[in-house]
Amino acid sequence: MKPVTLKQIAETLGISITTVSKALKDYPDVSKKTKALVKDLAQTLNYKPNSFAVNLRTKESKTIGLIVPEIVHHFFSSVIKGIISQAEKKGYLVITLQSNESYDLERKQIELLLNKRVDGILISLANQTADYNHLNAVMSNNTPLVMFDKIAKLVKCSKVLINDREAAYKATQHLIDTGCKKIAHFRGPLLPQNSIDRFLGYKKALIDNGITYDSSLVYILKDMSYEEGRFYAKKLVDEHEGVDGIFINTDLVAIGAITEFNSLKIKVPEDISVIGFSNWFMSSVISPSLTTINQPGFEIGKKAFKLLYKEINSKKNDKIINFKEVILDTQLVLRESTKS
Amino acid sequence: MKPVTLKQIAETLGISITTVSKALKDYPDVSKKTKALVKDLAQTLNYKPNSFAVNLRTKESKTIGLIVPEIVHHFFSSVIKGIISQAEKKGYLVITLQSNESYDLERKQIELLLNKRVDGILISLANQTADYNHLNAVMSNNTPLVMFDKIAKLVKCSKVLINDREAAYKATQHLIDTGCKKIAHFRGPLLPQNSIDRFLGYKKALIDNGITYDSSLVYILKDMSYEEGRFYAKKLVDEHEGVDGIFINTDLVAIGAITEFNSLKIKVPEDISVIGFSNWFMSSVISPSLTTINQPGFEIGKKAFKLLYKEINSKKNDKIINFKEVILDTQLVLRESTKS
Repeated sequence: MKPVTLKQIAETLGISITTVSKALKDYPDVSKKTKALVKDLAQTLNYKPNSFAVNLRTKESKTIGLIVPEIVHHFFSSVIKGIISQAEKKGYLVITLQSNESYDLERKQIELLLNKRVDGILISLANQTADYNHLNAVMSNNTPLVMFDKIAKLVKCSKVLINDREAAYKATQHLIDTGCKKIAHFRGPLLPQNSIDRFLGYKKALIDNGITYDSSLVYILKDMSYEEGRFYAKKLVDEHEGVDGIFINTDLVAIGAITEFNSLKIKVPEDISVIGFSNWFMSSVISPSLTTINQPGFEIGKKAFKLLYKEINSKKNDKIINFKEVILDTQLVLRESTKS
Repeated sequence: MKPVTLKQIAETLGISITTVSKALKDYPDVSKKTKALVKDLAQTLNYKPNSFAVNLRTKESKTIGLIVPEIVHHFFSSVIKGIISQAEKKGYLVITLQSNESYDLERKQIELLLNKRVDGILISLANQTADYNHLNAVMSNNTPLVMFDKIAKLVKCSKVLINDREAAYKATQHLIDTGCKKIAHFRGPLLPQNSIDRFLGYKKALIDNGITYDSSLVYILKDMSYEEGRFYAKKLVDEHEGVDGIFINTDLVAIGAITEFNSLKIKVPEDISVIGFSNWFMSSVISPSLTTINQPGFEIGKKAFKLLYKEINSKKNDKIINFKEVILDTQLVLRESTKS
């Protein structure tokens, strides 16, 4: 069954296509009687406006693109949910892509979304991304772009963030306040801005509290997995004595570390305190439950869409786009893996 | 900056639009020299074919729609990942929507996707969905539709499933084999086919093993949350004595139940054995870790897209579409929450 066209409705009623089109859009210069006739027939025939033709006319697709490094991930799935819920309210659909932390894939996906003529793009960068030409291409293509979580400082666009440095400082300060003196850090890879900032927050808290910074206590992780958490927890106790606290870049890794300590009969928090980052749901159900920093994924997603929506509308109305940097609050969530 | 058009390229080179179009598509009746000129200029000007016009011509959007009840959910996010990874390989983009288990929302989303003229739709039904007119509308609109996980038996379309009844039987049999005699069941809501089938598998295993079925040991949950797991675990021990095993419809609920038993000082599995369903990642890191049935989310997603892709192509080539029902394997995953 082929979709019904305006032409068929016009022919059936013996009126012009223009009149049909105007009737469906409630133009005042079409009589009430004609409008009723057209609308009834359109409904009976299950008429749907051809969205491709509408797109061609309005130059809008009413879709946006979203690229995240990983979907099966509590933080990113919360962000996706926030974006989709907000987009739906404004009549936008979201095309989601996963970069798998790969720069090459991310670059291709940006190209794909631009070819698709999405109205805007939301992105959290892959860990591998160190070159920003693909993002600058989005900007020079005049397509609104909003970055969140893993952003590039050098790209001039709107961003939704938390204050990673301050939050990491808060986490490390909590370890110090509860008596830890030799504090390790499992950090993320070298490139992403958020793993740099969390590391800097950790370091600053040590220095501000008169604790000598020891680079051998900082481990650089690659894929931020549960397995890496286990591996580096073992490595840490093999290589160092007397470590009594760790600040870990992401909850999933911290959960791996706690599991490893449990299996090594190292008591958390009595022997070593552990604090994570992001507040994944599962952090509240493991034993001991994980003290962490709450990173509001759902709100980050909502806010990122709102900024993008504003820019899409500014562009449509030929207004100047002012880039914004929105910083959302984080909270320290106290649980069992640190001392009271 | 407005996108460059074929017309501009044609005017710049002083040739016809048709020649430009043919040159970009490597038609044999355009000289090599002209092709080189056109392609070089197109690249310099960053020319991109207008995807809306391409859609209008090919009547294809190269996008598909996906509706899931919930995104922040280990099983569904795994399915989404499987679908997106497979779709990308075939050059399709995926629009994801979340029904929040609401029939009304699901119906609107189907309408939205049809209006958007997606090439196909993948769906796992909301718990509330008991009326299938919106799905039949997809079929009568001649848009390929594949259902997975929560399906409607009455809708004639392709489906990707596990054998829920058999898997639930296997789970319950494991409780019986490890010595449980009074076995409760936390089931899902009344409507979804998979919660019906899991309940039937549980019941059949009891009967086949000569254990009298007691309907008061079956609790009907609403939203399948962690909190419900805690609530019903408490209710179960308040209402019954001597229950030594539970089969729980979903891992998340089982994790809630184990947490509640831990806090009530009821030992798992010594006092009560717990078996879940789905194999969420966090089931392996809680204490005691959860014995469960592995439901292969990523593979379900991949397979669902593959079926849809086949149907999209059959439709394009005016071939008859044969609906398929693919049943994927499940495995019993033995951990600490059941006896050995």
